[in-house]
Amino acid sequence: MPNYKLTLCYEGTRYRGWQRQGNTPDTIQARLEGVLSRILEQPVELAASGRTDAGVHARMQVCSFRAETPLRCEEILAELRARLPEDIGAVSLEPAPPRFHARLSCVEKSYLYRIWNSAEPNVFTRRFQARVPRPLDTQAMERAAALLLGEHDFAAFSSVKNGKKSTLRRINSVTITREGQELRLLFTGNGFLYNMVRILTGTLLQVGEGLLRPEEISRILLSRDRSQAGPAAPACGLSLWEVKY
Amino acid sequence: MPNYKLTLCYEGTRYRGWQRQGNTPDTIQARLEGVLSRILEQPVELAASGRTDAGVHARMQVCSFRAETPLRCEEILAELRARLPEDIGAVSLEPAPPRFHARLSCVEKSYLYRIWNSAEPNVFTRRFQARVPRPLDTQAMERAAALLLGEHDFAAFSSVKNGKKSTLRRINSVTITREGQELRLLFTGNGFLYNMVRILTGTLLQVGEGLLRPEEISRILLSRDRSQAGPAAPACGLSLWEVKY
Repeated sequence: MPNYKLTLCYEGTRYRGWQRQGNTPDTIQARLEGVLSRILEQPVELAASGRTDAGVHARMQVCSFRAETPLRCEEILAELRARLPEDIGAVSLEPAPPRFHARLSCVEKSYLYRIWNSAEPNVFTRRFQARVPRPLDTQAMERAAALLLGEHDFAAFSSVKNGKKSTLRRINSVTITREGQELRLLFTGNGFLYNMVRILTGTLLQVGEGLLRPEEISRILLSRDRSQAGPAAPACGLSLWEVKY
Repeated sequence: MPNYKLTLCYEGTRYRGWQRQGNTPDTIQARLEGVLSRILEQPVELAASGRTDAGVHARMQVCSFRAETPLRCEEILAELRARLPEDIGAVSLEPAPPRFHARLSCVEKSYLYRIWNSAEPNVFTRRFQARVPRPLDTQAMERAAALLLGEHDFAAFSSVKNGKKSTLRRINSVTITREGQELRLLFTGNGFLYNMVRILTGTLLQVGEGLLRPEEISRILLSRDRSQAGPAAPACGLSLWEVKY
């Protein structure tokens, strides 16, 4: 069956995350599969580049699916745009090579974590930022972030203990930028474990607040012990930013 | 009684506008007066620089009120921030001169109308922009906007016919800027009639789409006839932007 590549964006606020969960329609995968199946008049199963947690957004998410249909991509895309709820956007749809798979073919992913660093709440960006009222030492955060680069066992920075699956991942870059009261942490790597970006962010925030010295990141990595790392930062601040193939 | 000046911002999406309406708590004034009355332990009545319609936002709204309280401004502000819903932000609170009144003392106001000019919906900015999928001739819109400058009778651009009240207003500037797929219309003047900015925008959009020639703005103004102007653009695109004293 022909293979397709669908590029999406979404605001995750009111969903229980990407992945289908039983019969609840409140996941992005369930919504999309429902709409696509009706358009294509056949059951459609989507593979995404990766799951996003409840409340997490995607500036760019990529899915693949197989279907036999007389409809052209532009027609399917127009139908998707007409039928999807307004917090899920269909960016593009194109034919994909037979072996393309949104998760398995992915070579690099980026996640952006946005922080509103101010005592005064921001009414307009609250759905996309976590608020940290205390001042943050971004230079210390950058020194700590540098210790995360390269291939490491990130077991200490993941919520789920699964003895069998590898917890080895490569982080290619962590870029921390400040624009006014907004602090942005952009993580790029070959893949991320469950909750990994939020726990990395929560730990870097502890460094920024002076609760942890930057050098301690190396000790936490080596411990492979989740309890050594900081708490997971709130879901709303996180967006899947870019997916590369 | 001492007089106070309160500066606010809000996302108007889920409210029926600024003004108190009977017993509904779904107006911004009702919410704020409720919270302030509890903090100050006395009934508080707010005067705002002007009403905003249902669904309209405010980057900057100014209110005044009188109260006798031992609390300092910083304490009241901290209490407001702790108790207000997350779509209403308390920016600042300061003592005001005895004769200061948020509406009567106001000398200039600005409203911003944001348009997402693209066939593809924007998932992330949809609450703050109206979407226009068709291409817009912004130069024609600028020529039409120039005809609005100065003092005019804007009866044609107001929803409510009130024979007694003056419909004379002065528009100081209309600035149209495009950034990528976003078009922004910033209106500055000494005051605006009910629905006036939305009807001005709806009419300028007709010019942008080629349905109306720019010169026709003058004829519409002179007609003083609401049916000659375009429809009111959607509330969600509008924000009260700045209030000057």
